[in-house]
Amino acid sequence: MQSISSSSYAVHFNQRAYDALNAHLSNKTYSKIFILVDENTHENCLPIFMAQIQGDYDFEIIEIESGEENKNIDTCTGVWSALSELDGDRKSLVINLGGGVLTDLGGFVASTFKRGIDFINVPTTLLSMVDASVGGKTGVDLGPLKNQIGVINQPEMVLIVTGFLKTLEERQLKSGFAEMLKHGLIQNKNYWENLKKVTDFLNIDDLIYDSVVIKNEVVLQDPTEQHLRKILNYGHTLGHAIESYFLESKVHKTLLHGEAIGIGMILEAYLSKELLGLSNEELADIKATFLSHYDKVSFSSEDITSILSLLKFDKKNSHGNINFVLISAIGKPEIDITIPHELYKDAFAYYAEQ
Amino acid sequence: MQSISSSSYAVHFNQRAYDALNAHLSNKTYSKIFILVDENTHENCLPIFMAQIQGDYDFEIIEIESGEENKNIDTCTGVWSALSELDGDRKSLVINLGGGVLTDLGGFVASTFKRGIDFINVPTTLLSMVDASVGGKTGVDLGPLKNQIGVINQPEMVLIVTGFLKTLEERQLKSGFAEMLKHGLIQNKNYWENLKKVTDFLNIDDLIYDSVVIKNEVVLQDPTEQHLRKILNYGHTLGHAIESYFLESKVHKTLLHGEAIGIGMILEAYLSKELLGLSNEELADIKATFLSHYDKVSFSSEDITSILSLLKFDKKNSHGNINFVLISAIGKPEIDITIPHELYKDAFAYYAEQ
Repeated sequence: MQSISSSSYAVHFNQRAYDALNAHLSNKTYSKIFILVDENTHENCLPIFMAQIQGDYDFEIIEIESGEENKNIDTCTGVWSALSELDGDRKSLVINLGGGVLTDLGGFVASTFKRGIDFINVPTTLLSMVDASVGGKTGVDLGPLKNQIGVINQPEMVLIVTGFLKTLEERQLKSGFAEMLKHGLIQNKNYWENLKKVTDFLNIDDLIYDSVVIKNEVVLQDPTEQHLRKILNYGHTLGHAIESYFLESKVHKTLLHGEAIGIGMILEAYLSKELLGLSNEELADIKATFLSHYDKVSFSSEDITSILSLLKFDKKNSHGNINFVLISAIGKPEIDITIPHELYKDAFAYYAEQ
Repeated sequence: MQSISSSSYAVHFNQRAYDALNAHLSNKTYSKIFILVDENTHENCLPIFMAQIQGDYDFEIIEIESGEENKNIDTCTGVWSALSELDGDRKSLVINLGGGVLTDLGGFVASTFKRGIDFINVPTTLLSMVDASVGGKTGVDLGPLKNQIGVINQPEMVLIVTGFLKTLEERQLKSGFAEMLKHGLIQNKNYWENLKKVTDFLNIDDLIYDSVVIKNEVVLQDPTEQHLRKILNYGHTLGHAIESYFLESKVHKTLLHGEAIGIGMILEAYLSKELLGLSNEELADIKATFLSHYDKVSFSSEDITSILSLLKFDKKNSHGNINFVLISAIGKPEIDITIPHELYKDAFAYYAEQ
């Protein structure tokens, strides 16, 4: 597959990715190369990755614990300290080998270590390949609030090796697939229709490529999220609040990101019908498609109240308004929509009904 | 005094500073204005500052503890949490009212809160007026290692109100004066000679202005410190190591930044004589000038060994080399000089001799 040019760097696929990496490492004279892994990518991905590196470089492996609950400043402090102790300097490189939690955190750590060193992202989950791979967003959570701390900064390159998807459980693959479905909903009805036909998540290289192209086109037009880029938040306003609430809850099991934003996309499709005239047919199509992949979740009225109270921390808010992205039709987004408060419970009721 | 234009913002002085701030606040529609203070600036500077604000805005005051020992990620987490709890959003403004510790930390917090919000620096110490006010360096310490975590990001504006200097003790004023002396040593012998005549630190507005102009000219030519900007680190390679060592030491009292880099500048002047031919006359002038302002400090051989072991964490290092800035004459700097190890102890011996 052709490489995709983003703002200041390229996204390379499969064998081309390793070729580009080897060329980059031999061109640059990095003082040291740090590879950030979690316990899963350490075991399952690092050996495959290292086997493709040509040349003799000074590598150090830094392992963090996987999971959204570790995407915090304490983990960053651990990685910063490791970089310091292992003699990282301004000419060092960090390679982030993992899912979105790891690439977001590793990008932030590299962007702030000694006021910024080079980093390369190697997403190993479907979610991070199609979502976290382009756009330059880095960051970590603050308590239950997702991605409150971070910077926008670009990697040297992004390497998408779809072979890593074989290391994932199906639940993880489906979580990433939700972001691909989102790209269809906000940009391209044909792409949405193609995604609906997918049955084998390990055989979708071309659709992954299309997803990266869609996201990249949006991000290139609005890197700092002043206007157009906000459409990528479709499903995420309620989805993030649901994800945060389940992460902190002692009663509910944690939802994966795609599972939470999948619910968010159904809820926000309902709001889209009410406020922007999304057709009943497309609304039903969206609900049925997500529910064919993800189990339905039950929300008590206390759950809903708690989730709605988290909305005020959404990063898209300004001047006390909660700003939604909705769609008037599949592929037709509109930004900065304010929701009458009484509609939220109707949306949850629509999600719950058979 | 005329305002000074830096890369993307201006440095305004005294009454012009308040005029520029009032114009900025009325032009922008900030959702909320946070003022970051420490216990000293809360009491001594905030009332003076607030009395000059025209218009009715939504202010929140966030107080942190003063002191280099609080310039760390824990303090950042406290400020990030306060911003979140007080409904800070992407359209909020942070005004940093304090010395270099506070403006460095507040700039980093603002640059990373929700991936970056606007901030304005109002330096209240001489050190922060002449040093931290321009250049966009933000950051905090990692354990004993100074400024290891940070980003380069520019404020909306910098406001220098020299009246705040009256709130400082003389030891604080002298600490800032060391950075002004440095600007003479690296750029301008005439300026150095003028500084030597100063007896009243509260009557040096024009010299403060000149110092900001010198630093600004250097920073504009090399914002990301690839080459020229490194000259601003004169005295700081050994100075930072001395400052870090004294900060952690249970035996020695903590040195102020200017006191530590003052020693660093004498030591590095000695290295300059040995390696770049700085004249004996200028070397003696440098030593005598600093010792006329700052008490001499005693270093045991164990102290020196510990200080030298900290050099490897210096941010200017690369590929294992410790890179010094030295001067061949007053006003004539050279960068990226490597020091033969045996010279360090001679430099400390020169500092100690009568």
